[in-house]
This record gives sequence, structure tokens and C-alpha cells, in this order.
Amino acid sequence: MLKMGASIINGGVSFRVFAYNRKRVALVVHRNGREEVFPMTEEEPHLYSTVLEGAGPGLLYKFRLDDEGDFPDPYSHYQPEGVHGFSQVIDHNSYRWQDENWRGRNLEELVIMEIHVGTFSQEGTFKGVLERLDYLRELGVNAIELMPVVQTPGRWNWGYDGANLFSVNNNYGTPDDLKQLIDSCHREQIAVILDVVYNHFGPEGNYIPVYGPYLTDKYQTPWGPAVNYDDRYSRYTRKMVLDNIRYWLEDYHIDGLRLDAVHAIKDSSPIHILQEIALTVRNLSLKQNRRKFVIAESDANDSRLINPLDRGGYGMDAQWMDDFHHCIHTVLTGEHQGYYIDYGWPEYLEKVFKNYLYTGQYSRYWGKKRGTDGSRNPGRQFVVAIQNHDQVGNRGWGERLAALVDFPYLKAAAGLLFFAPYVPLIFMGEEYGEKNPFLFFTDYQDPELKRNISLGRKEEFKKFGWQEIPDPQDPATFYRSRLTPRRLWREENRRLFRYYRDLIALRLSHPVLKEPDKRNLEIKVDGVSRLV
Amino acid sequence: MLKMGASIINGGVSFRVFAYNRKRVALVVHRNGREEVFPMTEEEPHLYSTVLEGAGPGLLYKFRLDDEGDFPDPYSHYQPEGVHGFSQVIDHNSYRWQDENWRGRNLEELVIMEIHVGTFSQEGTFKGVLERLDYLRELGVNAIELMPVVQTPGRWNWGYDGANLFSVNNNYGTPDDLKQLIDSCHREQIAVILDVVYNHFGPEGNYIPVYGPYLTDKYQTPWGPAVNYDDRYSRYTRKMVLDNIRYWLEDYHIDGLRLDAVHAIKDSSPIHILQEIALTVRNLSLKQNRRKFVIAESDANDSRLINPLDRGGYGMDAQWMDDFHHCIHTVLTGEHQGYYIDYGWPEYLEKVFKNYLYTGQYSRYWGKKRGTDGSRNPGRQFVVAIQNHDQVGNRGWGERLAALVDFPYLKAAAGLLFFAPYVPLIFMGEEYGEKNPFLFFTDYQDPELKRNISLGRKEEFKKFGWQEIPDPQDPATFYRSRLTPRRLWREENRRLFRYYRDLIALRLSHPVLKEPDKRNLEIKVDGVSRLV
Repeated sequence: MLKMGASIINGGVSFRVFAYNRKRVALVVHRNGREEVFPMTEEEPHLYSTVLEGAGPGLLYKFRLDDEGDFPDPYSHYQPEGVHGFSQVIDHNSYRWQDENWRGRNLEELVIMEIHVGTFSQEGTFKGVLERLDYLRELGVNAIELMPVVQTPGRWNWGYDGANLFSVNNNYGTPDDLKQLIDSCHREQIAVILDVVYNHFGPEGNYIPVYGPYLTDKYQTPWGPAVNYDDRYSRYTRKMVLDNIRYWLEDYHIDGLRLDAVHAIKDSSPIHILQEIALTVRNLSLKQNRRKFVIAESDANDSRLINPLDRGGYGMDAQWMDDFHHCIHTVLTGEHQGYYIDYGWPEYLEKVFKNYLYTGQYSRYWGKKRGTDGSRNPGRQFVVAIQNHDQVGNRGWGERLAALVDFPYLKAAAGLLFFAPYVPLIFMGEEYGEKNPFLFFTDYQDPELKRNISLGRKEEFKKFGWQEIPDPQDPATFYRSRLTPRRLWREENRRLFRYYRDLIALRLSHPVLKEPDKRNLEIKVDGVSRLV
Repeated sequence: MLKMGASIINGGVSFRVFAYNRKRVALVVHRNGREEVFPMTEEEPHLYSTVLEGAGPGLLYKFRLDDEGDFPDPYSHYQPEGVHGFSQVIDHNSYRWQDENWRGRNLEELVIMEIHVGTFSQEGTFKGVLERLDYLRELGVNAIELMPVVQTPGRWNWGYDGANLFSVNNNYGTPDDLKQLIDSCHREQIAVILDVVYNHFGPEGNYIPVYGPYLTDKYQTPWGPAVNYDDRYSRYTRKMVLDNIRYWLEDYHIDGLRLDAVHAIKDSSPIHILQEIALTVRNLSLKQNRRKFVIAESDANDSRLINPLDRGGYGMDAQWMDDFHHCIHTVLTGEHQGYYIDYGWPEYLEKVFKNYLYTGQYSRYWGKKRGTDGSRNPGRQFVVAIQNHDQVGNRGWGERLAALVDFPYLKAAAGLLFFAPYVPLIFMGEEYGEKNPFLFFTDYQDPELKRNISLGRKEEFKKFGWQEIPDPQDPATFYRSRLTPRRLWREENRRLFRYYRDLIALRLSHPVLKEPDKRNLEIKVDGVSRLV
């Protein structure tokens, strides 16, 4: 196992990078206000390395590829100056972990809050989350799921525009800040799930494709050419992803991963990359004697994704199930635009508490049959929500449910969520009925990209009949999306918070609810009209 | 997935080979009494390929590496002239399979006969086995396990001196002969298990290491440097092994694999090659909708080997458990030489019907603590025997149990075997009390190897106090090891055969025995003295 990127070794730092079809590759170091260049050796075809004696943590560096330019390390662990800047050497052995007694948590006992670090607190940092652990404990959630924390362009971003897989976002803090947050969560018995993106790379500052065939034209995805998992030289992509899995679980003590949109991960290899990811997580879990898990986001309703490796499944411990959200959302709001066209009948609720809603039937939105049977998969394999960053933020105006329906309906929805035989996830702010939107915001610096994102967003929502939606590049769009500080809450916020707190406590303590079992569940929907 | 070796394509044959650090690689073809040479292109570093238009099945070829010589293809599917000769292009699509309704068999229902093709019949061929399927049906076994069938040096060999992983042994017949045997077995509802060797390559005619770093000095094994599963360029070894798994399961419809001595497979990669093998088998099983399995031979008594992939195990469906054999063998024979020193007490039988015997205790033979707890692994995960090729053939004189103890004891041993809550395996000839030995025989052609093997064998057995053992290179050693034709059986052979037949029928039909469950088993050993 060759170690890629910068690694601290005895007496210096070792560097290694895959650079496809280059003639000369060099390490460019920035120190004492000066640039120094060290040629690298091609130790294997396309694989360059060197050792810098006497160097240590904090060193700033890039790699020079022929005369094409200097680029950040695809394995950069930190980009203190952002996606375009120098990579920094990080020492992962310096942080003193305090969580040696932490054994992790089982999926079936989780109540998760999804958190966007940048808008969760006024500070918008890991420290901002850390300072609110008391709040989370008061509410009673026992897991947080951080939207992606890797380096993104500009000052703010949802996280899915990550420039590489390893660099902690400098807008959120330092690697040690993230470790401190995770360590403190473990002290509070809160598991930390990290959202990771292996289906595309961000549109700005992503230099990974400069280094080699990390993308392939074999498949197209919504983001262009697919990440290369089965074409020539795909072993470097596969290694990078598996290295990344180990990195978060070992160097950062992350408890679980949430893989973004795995339906856009195209792989026809005999062993699917998701199977290798699952195995890697299982092996680490055994090695560390800590419960670790991997949850996939997928719109495919394909139970193979969550079936055991031992039965030829992809071995994901769980998956997001959007059908659950859509059934409740459409019944509560009466909406039927876009993909909501496939939902809206209250009686659907009966099925979606036991299975995917679409288990092979024709979908009007998809224009084809959709889904497989998931009735035999236990409830702990499905993470469900009545709100999440996507379902809120992908609306033109980013309206949370609290901005769409009255408070009694919010309570009804929460009841459905916490009584479901699934793993409940709430979206930060949901617990007190936040009315600020969660908008789609970006801070691209590239002029063309800035223009395109603003226009593109408008175009996208025309088909929904939504006009004049907020500009993602407008700083106000970000600022409007931040949570309301607790001191500014109204009485109805406090009331809903207490309701959530009590429901969560009930969920976690009631003998029936705390071990949800969908086989012993009976669901009956009375009445046939929509609720609104 | 690049296809290695020779593949029939539209209008010709495609060739591809990994040849490490070569300047010139060429395809050498032998046709119409002439040699033709075609330079190959380095399509990736160290990876050479070419297409020969107009060529087809039957073509003889080698690869020329610089000026070092011409060598058989490491992926050769057939060596009609033996290990040193030309490789032959095989068309795997020409055989017409008749087994489309075959769904495979579950491990827990198996009664296996281990067969060495060369000595099973007078012919010593696949056809020789095929012609005796009636006999196997009469006996009632529902699975055969073929000792390795790949090309070995000379006219006979146990099979573990395979020169590569893909070439059907020309002493046994052709690829189509093997397919016909398997196809016919499936017609008779007999599963076919194949013994495959991934822990070493044979000592003669093995040109695989000429092609690249398929071996590594990182570890030593009884056969010298280990097969390279985790050192530089190990991806080519790993690919070769995984390609080989798929080859037998897809092109030959093999139902199960028995991996030889996996404790000698050294791999410190994050995902162990055995886990990849297990996953490959699971994926193919699902794809073909046929039950497929993989059984490992291991002396480690390590339950991780057979624990599920989903719990970080290596995912082997089952393993051989020698402890079971040793407990019975020592009690019956009173032997205590070599590793039998750790066995011999009748009360051990109680434990070995529920678990490994060595589950962490100190072993005198090993000089250290040995084993883990296997009590929670179901009985179907353990293949047990009272005789097998190793326990018989690794004796200096290759005595079968029938040559060591009286017939009543043979019957008692068989009773223990078929009443055990494990998967029973018998060694060909055991069922009628064959008294011919199964000796260690070789037919090396290399003069130095011939001398060494004869001397080495004598040396090896000195420590057992066994002198003047048969010379492995002596043709008589092979001929003496063949089974006695049925027409020459004595009455006691016929009687034991009927006894085995009845026991097997009972095992497969009795409600308690046919679904063996070691949890509901009670074993009590009366008396404390050895049986002899």
C-alpha cells in the first residue's frame, strides 16, 4: 500500500503523487517567503515521489506538472488559502484524542441531526457547532451528520463542490478543530456521520483531473463525465476513494459515512467500488472495535445496495429513503410539481412504513418502472426524514416545511417521523420550526462559473413554474440561510422544540419505539383526501 | 477490466500479457510447421497486447521476452504439450452446456468425495471419472471435489505443482472433457468442487515469475518466497487470481472452490485477497442465480476466515477442520508422531463435535497457543474427514486407514463422520476400504529437481522415524496408488461399500441428520482409554 500525498516520516516529509503521462514532475515548496523546487522521481510509471529531509507540519507545497503549472495535491489534507492555493502538510499524530472508551453507536438507536456547518451557527465554523453541543444534548439527538466538510470554492458552499477528498474546509476551521468537535461529540455520546461525495468533483479549483484519468467518458452524469471507477487507470481513483474512507475513519474517528448520490457512481467492475467501501468500513470497525457504518444516498430503490455482502449485495449498512419524505410532504402540502407527481395519496403512507413506495411500479416522473422489493430489509437500513438539505434547499426559495404548513401539521409530521420503524433524521432548525430558508448558495470566484450558476439556477426552476428565485452567488442568499439564534426564538419555536425533545426522548426510551421493527407494525390510514 | 491471455474476438484472437520491465515482447505462433513472430505493443507500462487477424481456436503460441526466451502464457488455457510447451488458444463458447436448470447445492446438504483424477480410474482421465458417475450415484455422494486439475510437470502429479492457474491438465484430457464431466455431474445432481492453489506455484515449468513480480520476498512460505498479494505490482497477481475464480465458475460451471492452504497466503492489504475472492464468488452466484461457494483449507483455527464479510470476516463459506480428523485418527490408531502429539484423548471428541479442538490453548507441536473460538459458527462451515489426500498421502507409506485398523474401526469412524454436524468428505476408495496406498508421486523432468525430491522426501520422514519410503519419482509409486477396480473387490470391500451407501442415505434423508445443527447435539465419550 503506497502512501499518497504528504506523509510525515522520521526526519522529514515524504511526498507521492500519481501524474499521468508527464515528463517532469516537481515538488514546489513555499517557505520563508521563497519558492523552492525539488524534482520528483518516477518510482513506478506515472507515480512520482520524493522525500524532503528536515521538513515538517505546516509546510506549504504544490506539485509542478511539466510546464503546465503548479497544482494543489489531490491528497491535500488542508488548503489554508482555499481551493486554488498551496496544500499544507498536516501531522495527524499530534492531536491527543480523549475518546478511547467510545465504542460507536448502532444504527438502530440513532436520532440524527443533519448539520450544515456554515449556517448552523453565526460563526459558521466547527467551533460554532462545538459550542452548541449542550443544545444538541438538550434536544436529545445522539448523532450529527455533517454536510461535506472538504474544501470548496469561496467563502461558503453546501459542500458538494469539494475540490478534493481529504482537505478540511478552511472556512470551517482547521483539521484539529474538526477533531476537537468529533472528540467532544464522543464525550457526549454523540456519533458523527460525515457526508462524502464520490460521484463527482466540484466545478472550481478541482485540479484532480489535471493529474490523470480520474474521470471517464464511458458514462455521463448530471455533473458531466463520470468519476472513473472501471476504465483505464481506475485503480488510482479506487485507491483514492478507499484511502479517503480510511482517512476519515482512522485519522478523524468518524463513526459513519453518508455517501452522496451513489446512483451516479458508475462501475461495472466485477467487484463494485461500494462493496470495497463496505468491506473497508467493516475491516476498520473490527480492527478498532468500534461500530462504524456507511449510509448511501440513492434514488434507485434497489435493495441490492443494502443487502449483505455475503449475499452479493453492496453491503451499505443503510440508505436514505426519499419515498418516505415525499409521501408525507405531498400529503401535507398538496404539492405535485416535479417528482412529487408520483406521490400525494394518503394511503401510500401505509406502504411506505413497510417498504419503498416504488417497488417496481410505473413512475410517471421517471417514465419507467422503478424500484425493487425492500420489505425484507430491516427498518434500521433506512434513514428517513420529513426535511433534509435537499428537499428544502432544492426548492427555488428554499422553504422549510415550517414556511409551508401550519404548526399542527409540523407536529403531525414529526410524529410520523419518530414513530416510523426507520432511522429518523432531522434537518437543523426543523426542531423549532425555523422559518429562515435554506437556500442554494455558492461563492464561486471563476467569472464564467459565477455567471452560469446564476443563470442555470433560474433556468432549472422555470420548469417548476418558479420565477425570480434568489441568486446563489448573492451573499445575502447565504446569510438568509443561517439559523435564527435561540435568543431570538418566538414562543411557537420554543413550544415545537419541547415537542421534538419529548418525542425524541420517547423514541429513545419507549420499549417499542427504541427498537423499531417494521414487521410488528400496523399502519392504517383513515380517509382518502389530502390533509390540506 | 482488461482481458488477459488469449481471447477469441470477432475475426481473430486478441493477446495480452503483463511483462515487467521488458524492452521487447512478441507473440510467437507455431502453425503450419512454421514459427511466426509478431511484435506486441506496450499499451500501458508493462502491459503488452496484439491482435492476430484470422487466427482462431487451436492456435499454438508463446510469448517472447526480449532475448530471454519464449515462454508459455501465464493465462494459458491449455498446454497440449505440457508445462514447457506451447499454449493453445481455446474457444470457451463452443461447448454446448446442458445444465441450464442446475441451481447448485447448499453446503449443508453435501456429502463430498475427494477425487484425484489420475488415480481414480485406470484411465486416469476426466473420462475415467465420467464413466463412473453411476458408481458415485449408487454410493450416494452428491458432490465431488477434484484435486487440482491444472497442468503439472510430467505424466502424473497430485496437482499442487501447477504451472499456472488456467490450463486444464493434458494428462487428464481437454478443456471440453472437463466441461463434459461437470455437465454430466450436474445432470446427476452432483456438485463439482475444484481444488485451487493460490499460495505457491509449482517448481517445474512455472514461468509466471519470469513475467514479473508475482512473488515477493516480504514473506517466506514452505515453498519459498510468497505469492505477491501486497507488494509492488501485486495488482497483477490479485487480478490473475480473481480472473481465475471467475474463469472456473463461469467458463467451467464449477460450483465450489477449495482453496489450498490459505494460511500460506500472506496479505496485509486493507482488503484481504480472500475477501475479494469471497465477494467475487457471491457476485457470480447472484448473477448466475446458482449457489456457489468457496471452502478454505487452513490450519489456523481462525474463525475470522469463515466469519461473514459483513462482520469483517474473510467470508469463506466453509473451511477444512483437521482437528476433527486428528482426534478420530489418533484415538483409532494410537499414533502420536508429528502433529498427532497434540491429540489422542477420546474425551477430545466431545469438544471437536462442537468447535475447533484448539481454541486458544497451548499446542505442543506448534510450541504456542493456537486457535480461536468457532463455537458460534454453524456446522455447515466445517468440512471434515476421517481420511483425505493429505492425511493419507503425507504419510511415508501413504497408508489409508483401512491399512492401519480393522474393519469394525472403519465402520465406527464412518459413523462418527456421517453423524457429525459438519459437512462430511470422504477420500476416494475410503467407501470400500481400499488398501492400496495413496503415495506422494511426482514425475518431474528437471534432473536436479528429480534428485532433490527423492532425497527431500526421505529427509522429511526421518524425523517421523520412517525410513526407506517409496521414491516419489518411481513410476511404481504412482501405479501403486491407483484404486482397485471394482471387479477385484473382496467381500469385505463390498460390505463396507454397502455400509457407506446406507450411512450416506441415512445422512441425507433422516430429518435430524440432513440438517445438522451442532447446537442441538450432545456428545458423550464413555471411557478414557484409547480405542486400540
